[in-house]
Order: sequence, then structure tokens, then C-alpha cells
Amino acid sequence: MVNSLLASTSTIYGGTYLDYLFDSLKNLYQEVEEIVFIPYARPSGITYTEYTSLAEIAFQKIGKHIRGIHTFENPVQAIRNAEGIFTGGGNSFVLVSELYNQNLIPALQEVINSGTPYLGTSAGSNIAGPSIRTSNDMPIVYPPSFATLGIVPFNINPHYLDPIPNSKHKGETRETRIKEFHQFNDIPVIGLREGSWIRIQNQQIVLKGEGLTARGFEKDKTPYEIEVETALDYLK
Amino acid sequence: MVNSLLASTSTIYGGTYLDYLFDSLKNLYQEVEEIVFIPYARPSGITYTEYTSLAEIAFQKIGKHIRGIHTFENPVQAIRNAEGIFTGGGNSFVLVSELYNQNLIPALQEVINSGTPYLGTSAGSNIAGPSIRTSNDMPIVYPPSFATLGIVPFNINPHYLDPIPNSKHKGETRETRIKEFHQFNDIPVIGLREGSWIRIQNQQIVLKGEGLTARGFEKDKTPYEIEVETALDYLK
Repeated sequence: MVNSLLASTSTIYGGTYLDYLFDSLKNLYQEVEEIVFIPYARPSGITYTEYTSLAEIAFQKIGKHIRGIHTFENPVQAIRNAEGIFTGGGNSFVLVSELYNQNLIPALQEVINSGTPYLGTSAGSNIAGPSIRTSNDMPIVYPPSFATLGIVPFNINPHYLDPIPNSKHKGETRETRIKEFHQFNDIPVIGLREGSWIRIQNQQIVLKGEGLTARGFEKDKTPYEIEVETALDYLK
Repeated sequence: MVNSLLASTSTIYGGTYLDYLFDSLKNLYQEVEEIVFIPYARPSGITYTEYTSLAEIAFQKIGKHIRGIHTFENPVQAIRNAEGIFTGGGNSFVLVSELYNQNLIPALQEVINSGTPYLGTSAGSNIAGPSIRTSNDMPIVYPPSFATLGIVPFNINPHYLDPIPNSKHKGETRETRIKEFHQFNDIPVIGLREGSWIRIQNQQIVLKGEGLTARGFEKDKTPYEIEVETALDYLK
């Protein structure tokens, strides 16, 4: 019964916040008037209020209201009553710490699995997998756990980057990092390029995005490209 | 009494493992015959044995022996008895997990503060700061803590990368990530570019590296460049 959209990024190059997703968001939130926004990931350290305003400006363009979860007296109850939910990007460690701090993980799992429309971008997509162990973020705070919602049976690596040809930099490539992940973890990983998203609807998990492939990583397999419109339910 | 060399990377573009540091390593390890190597960070998931061989091949060139800590029955005792220590790069989360697992943090702090020569590269340098909260690595395992050795009073960001001009990628730059760190943490951060290192000797902490500056980050200050040979003791 999950009805969700998990995007690699909120904004693509040359675009404005969420604009490339508007058509899909109208569909996701078709029966929703007010969306509860989770601003905990605080990109560049902006405040919850500033971040909520950004989301509000974008959603006004498709006739939806936004209310920040921090403005509710009881955040767990806010999630239980929400018509729709959106978790914005930023720092996954900060986001997950505050979700645990507010005891929101079980409530989110419950309502999203019961069909409350859920949008995640970047860190907000990352938490839809079983853990943030494939986050790209800097571990600036220590969360009580890396375990997250498990709405999809694989981990997501947002903002997936291909190795830069002829790079002189000796830091690990994204592919190397995900291979290291599979030395210690069994679950598959989807490297989701900017402009790609995953749509979960009618009990199917489908890769979306204009003309983009995603990169699939399974333990002990060679990484491979996944075409748009591929059903990802085979990944377990 | 600390006698240590903390390098951004083990290998610079076009070079072989550690070769750009050989002169400095002869000085660091001048009274050392056998160096205890900590291979726990396992870059690309290689085994402890494979990783130790890499270090052995490099150190043979300057007449030093390497022995992997995993070959000792009692790793804590191995550190206490070590003439010199080297922690190689790889994944900081994996490294720190195993350091805690083997109860090595207090032993390392004790002997390094008492003058046992210590070399760190990349993740091995990262752990010389108070925490791995400025690591670039993927959090593929969940360590019991992010707290590390605190041999220097600031955090290190190894493989420091400047923003790529005209990039179309929307992931955070390194500078943005470190600014986010300072929303939640007070200690300074040194962005150490590949080819740079920090030398701690005679109670001074000095930036080294051929013609390279490092990037300094202090809470509520504009980031700034630091010249080679600058004493970093002012960072507290």
C-alpha cells in the first residue's frame, strides 16, 4: 500500500526547487491539501523555519500547503494525522538523530506502509532504505542507530556520481565505497543519479527519470545499469 | 612528546605507495626497526594480509620492517610494545569499529602521547583528531562511538577537495559539509589537500607539503588558507 516518491535530489542543474518533479508530485499528493514537512536534515545548517519556507514556496506552485513538523506540539501525532509527508535533504546523520530523538521512526513506518503519500529527496530518500549506511554525508553528529525506515528493501545512494575520467584525486570513487559497503552488508544498493527517482505505487517499485539509468549494486555481482521503467521489486 | 606524521593521503597522483613521504618517514622512524601496522580500515575491502604486504613493500625501500597488528595474539600488548605505529587509510567507520572492538583507543593514546612514533594516512590521520565527524567515508558499519585519539586538538579532513568550478552536481561541496559540522561542533578543522601532511614534533604542530596550502575552518569564521610551515598550535 506504499505510495511514495524517492528522488536523488530536490533540484536539478538549472532548475528550481522540486520543479522537475511537479507533475509527479501532483499525482503523488492528488488527495492531499496539507503536507507535513520534515526539515530536520538542515542543508547548510539553515533553520527549520527557513527550510520550511523553501518547501512552501515550491508547493504553492502546485496548490499544496506545507506545515513544518517542528510547529506541532506533538510530532508523532502530527505524523499519524498527516495527509501527506515530505522529508527534505541535507545531512542524513542530523536527520536520523532527530528522528530518533523525537521517536518518529515507528510512526513514519506505520503511516507510510498504510498508504500516507511520502516524498523524500536526497537524505529524505536515503532514510527510506533499511539504513543510512550508503549516505554520502559527513558524520557531523552521532545518531543512536543507522537503521531507518525500510520502506524499500534496498539502500539508496542519492546524488550517485560516476567516476571522473582521468581524475588525479586519490579519494575513493562512489563505486569503490559501495563495494566496501558490500564487504560488510548484504542488501542491494541503487545508485540514483540526479534527475532520477523511484516511484512506489500499486505494490510496484519502479525507476523513473528522463532518459537516465541508475546503477545497481548487489553483493558479489558486477555493478550494472538499470533502465528507466524497470521494476525494482526483484531486489531483496 | 608526540612524534607523529599525519598525511592526507598515502599516495599522490603518479606516485607509488608512500613514496613522497620517504624522507620524512626516515626522520619519523629513525630509531625504529619494526613498525606495527594497523590495517583495519581495509581500503576496497582488501584483507589485513594483503594490506600489510602493501605497507611492507613500501617500507622495505627505507629499510624498515612491518608487522600487521592482526598477527599478534594480544593487540593491546602489541601497541604497548611497539617501536613505531602506522595506521593506513580506508574506511574510517570500519577502522574505528575495530579499534573499539579490540579496545585499542586508550593504548594508542597512551603510547603516542608518550612518544611512540605514529604515522597516519587518510583514515589513519582522521583518527588522530578528537573524532571522525569530518570523515569523507561511507558509514558502512556502525561504530560504538565517533570519538577518536585526540592527539591533535582539531579535526582533520583528509583528501580535502576544493569546489569544482561550474559543476552541475548538486551534492554538497566539502566546504559546505564542514560548515554544517560547525553548526553542531566547536572544534577547528584542517582541510588537508593530497600531498600535505602535519608533523607533530618537539611540542609543535606544523603544516608540511610541497608548495601546498591547507584550508582552515573555525566556527563562525570565514574559511582561510594556511601556508606550509605554519604552526597549527593556535587551533584549540
